[in-house]
Amino acid sequence: MTPLASDTSSAPASGWVETVHLRPPSLDDNTSDADRLSDALKKRLNTDRVRIDLALLRRLPFQLRTCAFAVRCALFRDGSRWILIDVSAATDSVRFAGLAVDLGTTRVVARLVDLLSGRVLNEASFDNPQRSVGSDILSRIHYAEKTGHGLEQLRHSLVTAVNRHIRDLCRRSGRRPADVCLVSLAGNTTMSHLFAGVAPRWMIREPYIPVFNRPGLFRASDLDLEANAGARVYIFPNSGSYVGGDVVAGILHAGMGRAPETALLVDVGTNAEVVVGNQEWMVACAGAAGPALEQGVTRMGMMAESGVIDRVAIDPASGGFRIHVIGDQPPRGICGSGLIDLAAHLFLNKMIDIRGRLVPSNCGPRLREDGGSAALEIVAADQTADGKPLVIAQPDLDSLIRSKAAMYTILETITEIVGLRPRDLTRFYVAGTFGAFIDPRSAITIGMLPDLSLNAYVSLGNSSLEGASRLLSQRESLEEIDRITQRITYVELNVNQDFMNRFSAAKFIPHTDRSLFPSVNGPE
Amino acid sequence: MTPLASDTSSAPASGWVETVHLRPPSLDDNTSDADRLSDALKKRLNTDRVRIDLALLRRLPFQLRTCAFAVRCALFRDGSRWILIDVSAATDSVRFAGLAVDLGTTRVVARLVDLLSGRVLNEASFDNPQRSVGSDILSRIHYAEKTGHGLEQLRHSLVTAVNRHIRDLCRRSGRRPADVCLVSLAGNTTMSHLFAGVAPRWMIREPYIPVFNRPGLFRASDLDLEANAGARVYIFPNSGSYVGGDVVAGILHAGMGRAPETALLVDVGTNAEVVVGNQEWMVACAGAAGPALEQGVTRMGMMAESGVIDRVAIDPASGGFRIHVIGDQPPRGICGSGLIDLAAHLFLNKMIDIRGRLVPSNCGPRLREDGGSAALEIVAADQTADGKPLVIAQPDLDSLIRSKAAMYTILETITEIVGLRPRDLTRFYVAGTFGAFIDPRSAITIGMLPDLSLNAYVSLGNSSLEGASRLLSQRESLEEIDRITQRITYVELNVNQDFMNRFSAAKFIPHTDRSLFPSVNGPE
Repeated sequence: MTPLASDTSSAPASGWVETVHLRPPSLDDNTSDADRLSDALKKRLNTDRVRIDLALLRRLPFQLRTCAFAVRCALFRDGSRWILIDVSAATDSVRFAGLAVDLGTTRVVARLVDLLSGRVLNEASFDNPQRSVGSDILSRIHYAEKTGHGLEQLRHSLVTAVNRHIRDLCRRSGRRPADVCLVSLAGNTTMSHLFAGVAPRWMIREPYIPVFNRPGLFRASDLDLEANAGARVYIFPNSGSYVGGDVVAGILHAGMGRAPETALLVDVGTNAEVVVGNQEWMVACAGAAGPALEQGVTRMGMMAESGVIDRVAIDPASGGFRIHVIGDQPPRGICGSGLIDLAAHLFLNKMIDIRGRLVPSNCGPRLREDGGSAALEIVAADQTADGKPLVIAQPDLDSLIRSKAAMYTILETITEIVGLRPRDLTRFYVAGTFGAFIDPRSAITIGMLPDLSLNAYVSLGNSSLEGASRLLSQRESLEEIDRITQRITYVELNVNQDFMNRFSAAKFIPHTDRSLFPSVNGPE
Repeated sequence: MTPLASDTSSAPASGWVETVHLRPPSLDDNTSDADRLSDALKKRLNTDRVRIDLALLRRLPFQLRTCAFAVRCALFRDGSRWILIDVSAATDSVRFAGLAVDLGTTRVVARLVDLLSGRVLNEASFDNPQRSVGSDILSRIHYAEKTGHGLEQLRHSLVTAVNRHIRDLCRRSGRRPADVCLVSLAGNTTMSHLFAGVAPRWMIREPYIPVFNRPGLFRASDLDLEANAGARVYIFPNSGSYVGGDVVAGILHAGMGRAPETALLVDVGTNAEVVVGNQEWMVACAGAAGPALEQGVTRMGMMAESGVIDRVAIDPASGGFRIHVIGDQPPRGICGSGLIDLAAHLFLNKMIDIRGRLVPSNCGPRLREDGGSAALEIVAADQTADGKPLVIAQPDLDSLIRSKAAMYTILETITEIVGLRPRDLTRFYVAGTFGAFIDPRSAITIGMLPDLSLNAYVSLGNSSLEGASRLLSQRESLEEIDRITQRITYVELNVNQDFMNRFSAAKFIPHTDRSLFPSVNGPE
């Protein structure tokens, strides 16, 4: 799959730093220090309001005189006003930094960026410490409300971990936390609420209300983040409870809000979200089309870690499995992308039929019985990490079929809502681990993804992180985010008879309607 | 003198509290809590941006549900955005309060106002604790820069005193400091800087630069004020180093920025400032027309305290002095207004001549010698507080003549700058103690104030406090303040030959040009 290039490392700086050379005060020009600087910035930024925090105002006259009124300014925009976060000497080119954070439910990734050049300085990722109370969002929401200080505990554990990594990233990059002027943060709606210490409890009860959609700009100090005294934190807006800031960041990174052609974005992380649209309109849905389906789709993106099989092919000559293991070690499991590859190749080699059932006559000696089900040995016992054979059983395949059918049904439903068919899409963005690992060819073969040209599939990588980073180096991103959140419409996917009919039709490989998958040459 | 009625106690509430009844969320209307409230407020306030601080955002969902989505909101405007400071139940009519502060160099006056009704709850005044390092502004500026923590000490002493009075005013009014959502604060440029902890040192050195002109809005917590967690502090803007926020507040209170006719405002406090203008334009000058003149003018407003003679007349029958003492006790001195009265009556009774010299033939037995100068006994020794006669000596009268001449010269000069003569003014506002105590008839008689109809003279009282209070109850004040500061032009009064010629002409009673004072019937 084509990976989308990250803008942040290569783009020319057009971010949040401005350098101004002021005329020093004189009897003929004796305006105040603050006005002198603000007026120059207003002209430069075409705004009528520049806000200066009290702490900076106290330092400002000394700093202006120290650097002879030639200053580098770290700024951020908040609506029509600009906020002056800090000033430095115009000659100082290595001070101001920004931090982009992908606030994942499972993993958190933080990236330190030089604000002047837009260059990536360092990156770190770590487990979300809130996992200690539960791996899923629901258990955290319950924890936040049940215990007296549950919400504050969850918030504190996360902020503490982020702070530790701010210190560490700064140390590794020759910066200080006080240099961090901007923090750009994208997460799902629950994570954004928990990070801000805002109760998410009403999101899981009818009528499913988040406290905020556009949290806006906060002071880093209000969030207890270790950063510049005037640092601002931008939490990506969400669109309701289901379309989080991480998805908005993904849309920003993919550039869907800047393109005329209609594209689709799939983000399969802890949750699964789908967005279809262009610069004019956007429709989003979450994979919450019944818990069973959701769990199935979600599973596809999981477990892509060291020691896990992420690629499978069948050797045409020997009929044996060729596997790739992440980290090149003896395998201990198989992840979603590996499973999809496996199913595709089993199908192409007629070892499973169109319903995903193992075909004993074609499976040969690898077929066995495992707990009452047919099972296929993928890796022999002497080649696995734990010395046990790695098998795939019929229930695993059945589960995969349900997952892929759910995914295709969601894609079919949402594209139909906007008057398209899945095959009409010319651009198909796949975010996250799911996008990074799956082979679209295999996913098409089993009928999980539509039968588009392979060029149409673009892997976004960590689109949440990339979107958050983009904001640090491209100031136009702020307007784009506003446009995205204004245009996006969330649709609830009703699991009605029509949906279930589509789902049933999609439970075949690749589909009951083979004309939808002309490129797939498997058994009829 | 006609006193100007205070708007704050009588005006209908049109301040910073709005009550909204929201439709509770439903499946059909599942916008976020923050958006639900913001959207209603945006519509009500005709704005596109309502800011909610993080601390309030955390409380908001609970409070909305406690009061069934019918909320009273304390708000303030900051440019085009509105800030939601706190919410309360719509049924709660006695919570939100505002504090107006006149930040005088000598005295500080604080007034607690009910934000909903605009009603004054209580008032307190106290000595500015910074007086311990010096009574005048200059000594405080020096203290702020000389000592290591001088600035912080000065700031802290003042804030501590204000906090003590916030607690006290709240206690006396059945409120809590947490109810105080807005603080409106007016002081001269130096006091504003010291209160904010911003170094004023560059204001007293060429080219005389303040750090800020429009300090804007701060959080009360940033200024260490004991108030609502989200409370905002508005520090009245200054126009350069000499026209302080107290003057701007005075202009607001007088209504000069709302009136078509050209008026003049004199504020004689620790400094003396004069503003002339109307809703279209304004010109201001400070009485810093040479230190000697300034001191002279300034002295007029001083010492109006208990035990001091503030009114003097001469009994036409007996020729004896009729005095009024503040607090009705034996006198221990005479203040500016008393001195002006005295000089006027001495002149009308030919006991001083047009140069202010005591006329021995008309002074009778009260005339004596005092330290080499002629002196007149005003109160006999047995009727004074200290048992010594209260006398006025020729040097005192000479000093008064110089003061009144300086005042008139300044008034004449600034009115001429705007193309008028002093007598063309139809409205003449006199602020502060000076305005509260002087008899304009006497001031006209000695040629200190122009010979206008007595109706033209309006005493503004504590115009700084009244202006600060007005902002708490009249939200349009904010635009008016912006207009005032945009329109005001500061002019430096050059003590040139022309100025000195005017000054010499004004050193006669009432003036060398008697045609300027047709109502004065004293000796030729």
